[in-house]
Amino acid sequence: MPFLSGSPPARPERPLFAVVLGNTLLSTVPGVSGAGPSPEKTVLTPVLDSELISRGAIRSRRMKPNTPTGCPTPAVITRAMMALLGMEPLFVNAGLTTEPVIPCLDVYGEPGRDPREGDAVPRARALYAKGEMAGRLLSLWADFLVLGECVPGGTTTALCVLRGLGIPANVSSSFVDNPVALKESICARVLERIRAEGATDPLDIIRIGGDPMLAVAAGIASSFRGETILAGGTQMLAVAAVLRGLGEQVPPVATTVYVRDDPSAGFATTAETIGARAWYVDPGFGDLGHSGLARYCIGEVKEGIGAGGAMFLARVMGKSGEEIREAVLSTVSSY
Amino acid sequence: MPFLSGSPPARPERPLFAVVLGNTLLSTVPGVSGAGPSPEKTVLTPVLDSELISRGAIRSRRMKPNTPTGCPTPAVITRAMMALLGMEPLFVNAGLTTEPVIPCLDVYGEPGRDPREGDAVPRARALYAKGEMAGRLLSLWADFLVLGECVPGGTTTALCVLRGLGIPANVSSSFVDNPVALKESICARVLERIRAEGATDPLDIIRIGGDPMLAVAAGIASSFRGETILAGGTQMLAVAAVLRGLGEQVPPVATTVYVRDDPSAGFATTAETIGARAWYVDPGFGDLGHSGLARYCIGEVKEGIGAGGAMFLARVMGKSGEEIREAVLSTVSSY
Repeated sequence: MPFLSGSPPARPERPLFAVVLGNTLLSTVPGVSGAGPSPEKTVLTPVLDSELISRGAIRSRRMKPNTPTGCPTPAVITRAMMALLGMEPLFVNAGLTTEPVIPCLDVYGEPGRDPREGDAVPRARALYAKGEMAGRLLSLWADFLVLGECVPGGTTTALCVLRGLGIPANVSSSFVDNPVALKESICARVLERIRAEGATDPLDIIRIGGDPMLAVAAGIASSFRGETILAGGTQMLAVAAVLRGLGEQVPPVATTVYVRDDPSAGFATTAETIGARAWYVDPGFGDLGHSGLARYCIGEVKEGIGAGGAMFLARVMGKSGEEIREAVLSTVSSY
Repeated sequence: MPFLSGSPPARPERPLFAVVLGNTLLSTVPGVSGAGPSPEKTVLTPVLDSELISRGAIRSRRMKPNTPTGCPTPAVITRAMMALLGMEPLFVNAGLTTEPVIPCLDVYGEPGRDPREGDAVPRARALYAKGEMAGRLLSLWADFLVLGECVPGGTTTALCVLRGLGIPANVSSSFVDNPVALKESICARVLERIRAEGATDPLDIIRIGGDPMLAVAAGIASSFRGETILAGGTQMLAVAAVLRGLGEQVPPVATTVYVRDDPSAGFATTAETIGARAWYVDPGFGDLGHSGLARYCIGEVKEGIGAGGAMFLARVMGKSGEEIREAVLSTVSSY
């Protein structure tokens, strides 16, 4: 298996790795999200993951942002890549329930609400505009942007937005067994609300059933003047679909083969429908001799907080597949 | 009069203009600050000024961040320079009473409290560490940092910190008549508290009597790997003094001749005591035919939100004094 599907883009002069952090209260609904040790604690994962990536350890709480089965957070992969490249990630706070412990570019949004009960992101349009401002700012510093996300429960809001935009998509999950029935029932309620309003504008659809990350990431990608790569799974396809719906250029997406190979998601088909070029990273976690990483191959976690895009960026910056695998293994083993 | 005292540094490849925003509740004490139409409204000035600079207009409130006499905010000067250079400023939120309306790099601090009543910045040491993280981040994007500030009431906290560090300094004011007696009485109370504790560490002195900007700006300057220029008046001398007290390199300071020529402040002498090289910008506002700008020459406003440093940066980037003066005049005239 090649490490990267297709040949990487030319090595950029000034790359930037940024991650948009957000919450949706849907992650606290039992069964929706595996991104944390318990449903209530999933909301903390963006803050803990960003701390882990920036500081190398979580010191703010006695907690690990691992899955209920103890599978390591993808943040350790992102951390390993930043260290390998000598880079620091920029975190963007799109709307969190908890205050971050490291500096973030903050657009002063709010966590997404439960879209079954009312508008999920009342200020979606304003958040998109803030994202545009952020994208213009990043354009001064970088010519190549790898844009990841961390939103526990975000595949469910992504499902609502993709379907709301008329795309017959399914989405992936950090659980081995994708809780498809639960997601579908939430999505059905949201699609009812979208139909009742007759909403077709992508930002109205985010307002009704999305999360703050979707608005902010789309805004950043629309205004960034260099090359943008959306780093993530089906959540980033929702961002790409929003951009397409707004008549903007659709950026390529980079993710792991574990997302691609999730039969419940149909990632490649959806990417094709949207017109998003996709790169897949195959880090071969099954033969590294680490039981937690091996669980990625049986479909746990799969991706998150830009991990696939971070490995993609390392490849773009000239690191070999072996160097990348070794860096991940030694970092994960140190936790 | 030359536009700039001394020859400018070599033109950098990747300049960044950043402004640290903060509040101290001292600005609401009547008579302390002229940075706003009334004492209560001074706390809004950082948010309004940053909106004016980034968007070109204040749309979030029906308010102008001008002085009680209607003298234009220095934000229009900073705005003019950013437009002339095709740059966007980065705002850093060190601790504000109000949520910013534009994206900021946020270190999640709090507004400074009244230092007569207790610790002004309880988490000063943590804020300095957050500043260090921010400075490392900026190092990835820039090789030359012009770092301004906006803290209404901040000359009073600067006075407390400078004197607390044993520097026999006075400070400037945005008022024509510097409220020296009021500042001295506040400072006397703070110095009592510093002496009672026997505090000598600069971060303890900020904790007791400073404001959040002082901690964050010092942290940024200490860790930024390129060249740093502190853009501002006596408040930036306090930052320089903190850095000296911490055993860090003391960066140069750039400000206007209106600050230098304030006889109540003694800027040049204090800069020399601290060992900070100073650049002075003389934009000749007296002969531009604009009554508001001319008031800068009689000692109103004088400086603020990096205005002096922004004109300095324009000169460093190769603009002539005439181009800079014309850009300021046409921008100010449009408000």
